[in-house]
Amino acid sequence: MADSELNGELGKTKGTRIVVIGASAAGMRAACRARRLMPDARILVIDSTAEISVGACGLPYVLAGDIDSGEDLRKTSYDVLRDQAFFENFKGVEVRCGLCADRLDLDEKLVEVIDIASGERMRIDFDKLVLTTGAKAMDPFNIPVDSKRIRAMKTPRDVRTLKHGLETGQIESVVVIGGGFIGCETAEAFSAMWGARVTLIEAMPQVLPGVLDEEMAALVHSQLKEQEVELVLGKKVMSIEEMDRGVEVMLESGRKVKADAAVCALGVVPCTEFGVEAGLNALPNGALIVDEYMQTSHPDVYAAGDCISVVHCLTGERVYLPLGSLANRHGRLIGDNLAGRRRKAGPITGSSAVKVFDLNVGRTGLTKAQAEMLGIECNSVWGTFNDKAHYYPETREIHFKLVYRTSDMSLLGLQAIGQGEVVREVDVMSSLLQRAANAADLLDLDTAYAPPYSGAVSALHFLGAAVLNAEQDGLRPIPPVSPLNAEKIIDVREPSEAGSHPVESSTAPILSIPLGKLRSKISDLNKEENILFVCARGTRSYEAARMFKNYGFEHVVYLGGGLSFRRDASFASL
Amino acid sequence: MADSELNGELGKTKGTRIVVIGASAAGMRAACRARRLMPDARILVIDSTAEISVGACGLPYVLAGDIDSGEDLRKTSYDVLRDQAFFENFKGVEVRCGLCADRLDLDEKLVEVIDIASGERMRIDFDKLVLTTGAKAMDPFNIPVDSKRIRAMKTPRDVRTLKHGLETGQIESVVVIGGGFIGCETAEAFSAMWGARVTLIEAMPQVLPGVLDEEMAALVHSQLKEQEVELVLGKKVMSIEEMDRGVEVMLESGRKVKADAAVCALGVVPCTEFGVEAGLNALPNGALIVDEYMQTSHPDVYAAGDCISVVHCLTGERVYLPLGSLANRHGRLIGDNLAGRRRKAGPITGSSAVKVFDLNVGRTGLTKAQAEMLGIECNSVWGTFNDKAHYYPETREIHFKLVYRTSDMSLLGLQAIGQGEVVREVDVMSSLLQRAANAADLLDLDTAYAPPYSGAVSALHFLGAAVLNAEQDGLRPIPPVSPLNAEKIIDVREPSEAGSHPVESSTAPILSIPLGKLRSKISDLNKEENILFVCARGTRSYEAARMFKNYGFEHVVYLGGGLSFRRDASFASL
Repeated sequence: MADSELNGELGKTKGTRIVVIGASAAGMRAACRARRLMPDARILVIDSTAEISVGACGLPYVLAGDIDSGEDLRKTSYDVLRDQAFFENFKGVEVRCGLCADRLDLDEKLVEVIDIASGERMRIDFDKLVLTTGAKAMDPFNIPVDSKRIRAMKTPRDVRTLKHGLETGQIESVVVIGGGFIGCETAEAFSAMWGARVTLIEAMPQVLPGVLDEEMAALVHSQLKEQEVELVLGKKVMSIEEMDRGVEVMLESGRKVKADAAVCALGVVPCTEFGVEAGLNALPNGALIVDEYMQTSHPDVYAAGDCISVVHCLTGERVYLPLGSLANRHGRLIGDNLAGRRRKAGPITGSSAVKVFDLNVGRTGLTKAQAEMLGIECNSVWGTFNDKAHYYPETREIHFKLVYRTSDMSLLGLQAIGQGEVVREVDVMSSLLQRAANAADLLDLDTAYAPPYSGAVSALHFLGAAVLNAEQDGLRPIPPVSPLNAEKIIDVREPSEAGSHPVESSTAPILSIPLGKLRSKISDLNKEENILFVCARGTRSYEAARMFKNYGFEHVVYLGGGLSFRRDASFASL
Repeated sequence: MADSELNGELGKTKGTRIVVIGASAAGMRAACRARRLMPDARILVIDSTAEISVGACGLPYVLAGDIDSGEDLRKTSYDVLRDQAFFENFKGVEVRCGLCADRLDLDEKLVEVIDIASGERMRIDFDKLVLTTGAKAMDPFNIPVDSKRIRAMKTPRDVRTLKHGLETGQIESVVVIGGGFIGCETAEAFSAMWGARVTLIEAMPQVLPGVLDEEMAALVHSQLKEQEVELVLGKKVMSIEEMDRGVEVMLESGRKVKADAAVCALGVVPCTEFGVEAGLNALPNGALIVDEYMQTSHPDVYAAGDCISVVHCLTGERVYLPLGSLANRHGRLIGDNLAGRRRKAGPITGSSAVKVFDLNVGRTGLTKAQAEMLGIECNSVWGTFNDKAHYYPETREIHFKLVYRTSDMSLLGLQAIGQGEVVREVDVMSSLLQRAANAADLLDLDTAYAPPYSGAVSALHFLGAAVLNAEQDGLRPIPPVSPLNAEKIIDVREPSEAGSHPVESSTAPILSIPLGKLRSKISDLNKEENILFVCARGTRSYEAARMFKNYGFEHVVYLGGGLSFRRDASFASL
């Protein structure tokens, strides 16, 4: 070992030796928490790059110009850059940059690292190791590392390169490959701020696959199209070629899409070769397997962040959820457990949120597609509600889908999309999912009400009631985006509303009978017919279906979420 | 009984006879739900006024002009007025207005009502009775019913009268008596929209008594003063006199406050003489006692809304909480139970929210003062956090106070005040309070994170950690608004921040040592001294206290919520 290493934490002769590999959210939380609880520990964090502790979730907002520079994502709320000196001085944690972890020996409990600048190889012994090596952007196209026109959206460098292209006018059009969180945020950043022409390509038939069910994704599709993003769904990209003055993206279909630049946002894969080669257990995609104490298959090795898998509390299955929220929580937990506190990680519901232009998108738990894939018998209800009192000026609509287990009406998941505040309902639902609640529990939520914040009855109250109506009373919604198949469709809206979204059906006659006049018309209708009731948001049509059921009509359904949902998803290319 | 009554529901000869007294939220929900589940029931709702089903929580926003007219508060989201015809035609529920319930005979199961227009007395027999008689404004001053200058804020008529005065220039100044929800909202309505000079008088030493603890109320005081509302606290009003061209409000102290008008917002009392005289059990204030099925002491009489008391889930005590959210939920529940479903009401946490100018104020559970009054040994932590990622442009600060039971760190209550989104955290906390969660559960919340919606670590995560730091590690905050008593105060902010809020103490020397330099100064300080650490939001000062504790300093505390909280409460007249 060279002299230069015989100082700092390595030079000390006493205290638990804790080595953390990866100086991002999870790693730094673990190290700083451990330092607070273990003043005598020898704690060393290493990272291959000097640009450490980046709040990478903010990168699309740097590209958009909402945030001045990538440096801002490395700053504390009190405007101090989180660099090596910061961690040393503020947190008492030594970080060494430019060191690449090369080999892990679990028997000897040592890490071999290479100093990238000098090529020098060093050995670091540890008592406890924390792997927070993160993830890297998936790159099936082998993008040249210095490309100015083809980038991922993973590092501040990616953003600097793209932003330079936009600022100098070299990029006026872009192809975004991948319709996940980053892809959608990136499409917005290019379009909303820079007015660039954006083509968004997703191999699956919908954006945000795995995050949203298809009819919920249709709301996002509609928004993207309204914002003039060209949406190419269900098409796989075969190759990207960098030309003299642009890029050419080749689709499986043979179609070529040309643009000034391409962003590859196909998701991330865990960086775990280092640990896996040493024998740590991992999922097939490389995500390390940890227990509820965040310990890997070796008891002295902890892991957290984008390099691990987690157990979903609703299914018991291991899933890969590279989310900043988990990285932070689990990092801190490792600090606790290094200090011997033996804290367990809490149940994971898979909550996430993403802003796509004017739409707020949130979800927690399972989508219906996910639940069905796991063999869970489940049903859904939909609803369209205001986020504030409906008469309050700044009120906005939100479309909801609630998924529940059919057998016991236990809650499985919530998806919420709209211009209103969506994360509130998502977070409340997540806390219920963590506690195995059912639909009836929603009716009992004691939420804070005032007209500027909510209706007197909240969306979750209504959705809980809709589940009970469906399962106890057989009043079932049909999905908001589905063919209007019935023998008769009755639109129970007021005449004044009809213009806002016409009802269209190629198969069934459509009657317009406002709810207030429906009672007097019942005797004109045939009890044997399949009748579909529609209204603006799904409330009146439910009442109409209930009324008809009470009058002996057996085959009545209503349009969940209403024509408002259908209208907002009307551009859907499903 | 006159012929005219022998039609409608009363004319029917079959079906359960359900009589509902009071056609507001609770009553109409009960009646409409019962109708949906009991198509054959004879359901009659009576009310003394013709202006039924008013969303009265919106009245301050009508006065402010945010909402055009009081009629808008009676409209559905699809713009239909909720009058008698609406309930008849849309809901199948008969409402008779202008009928005053005069006598209840529980043995005979009959109600005697008086037709206000004709003076005629009628008898209505019932099988089930629902009392949703609401509440009336407290009026110790016997305000003349036709006064143009002294009004409550309880009915659309109150608002019409006041708004007319504002529009015609007769009201340019107002005294608002009572600093509760309505008082605060009314102060805003007069001032923000109309530029009226507002004096807000509250008999208690703080606004929102019973809702907020004193240091939290201090944030609201500061906002009210910033908005040029004259705040008179701890002063009782003895009388109000209407003069030729104004009003004169006489305080206990002898001071007279003159203005063009006065609004009396002293709270409400339940309208239950009718039921209490018949022998139904009630609290001393008249609020009816109901069980978890919303049944009064007579099994065939249900009650809900502003005329009942509820059991607080954290204390088991009966409390009077006249909230629109409860009225709606409990009304629907009565409908279920009338139909024989035997549903129980959910646990009540006492969640509420109110907008006071630019501040959003939310709370759930118990305040510290309430918990202490009940003999619960409890502690608090405070925190100041952003509602979005701290680098996101539209991020706003929120100040929090979390109250917990000392013995087991179980959660007791949350108060949140700031320009950011507060109701989200309140609603999540309420769902936890309903389930007897503790501080460690907060650390495990799986919240949805994206920079436009939250930080990667949410306020509730931080607050949970602060409780554990206090109780497990003895790292205690002092209240953000309290004298800075210590032998030494160390301000660990950066030099660049010091201007934003100077630290002032008459007793202790103040050292300015940024957190990043603190480690190197430890040896200069005396381990025996009481040291108070301060920073902007309470995070760095906690870290400093932890560091000093680790170095053997026993008497260290930090300023909860930080100087930011203190600054925002700096006008406090506590």
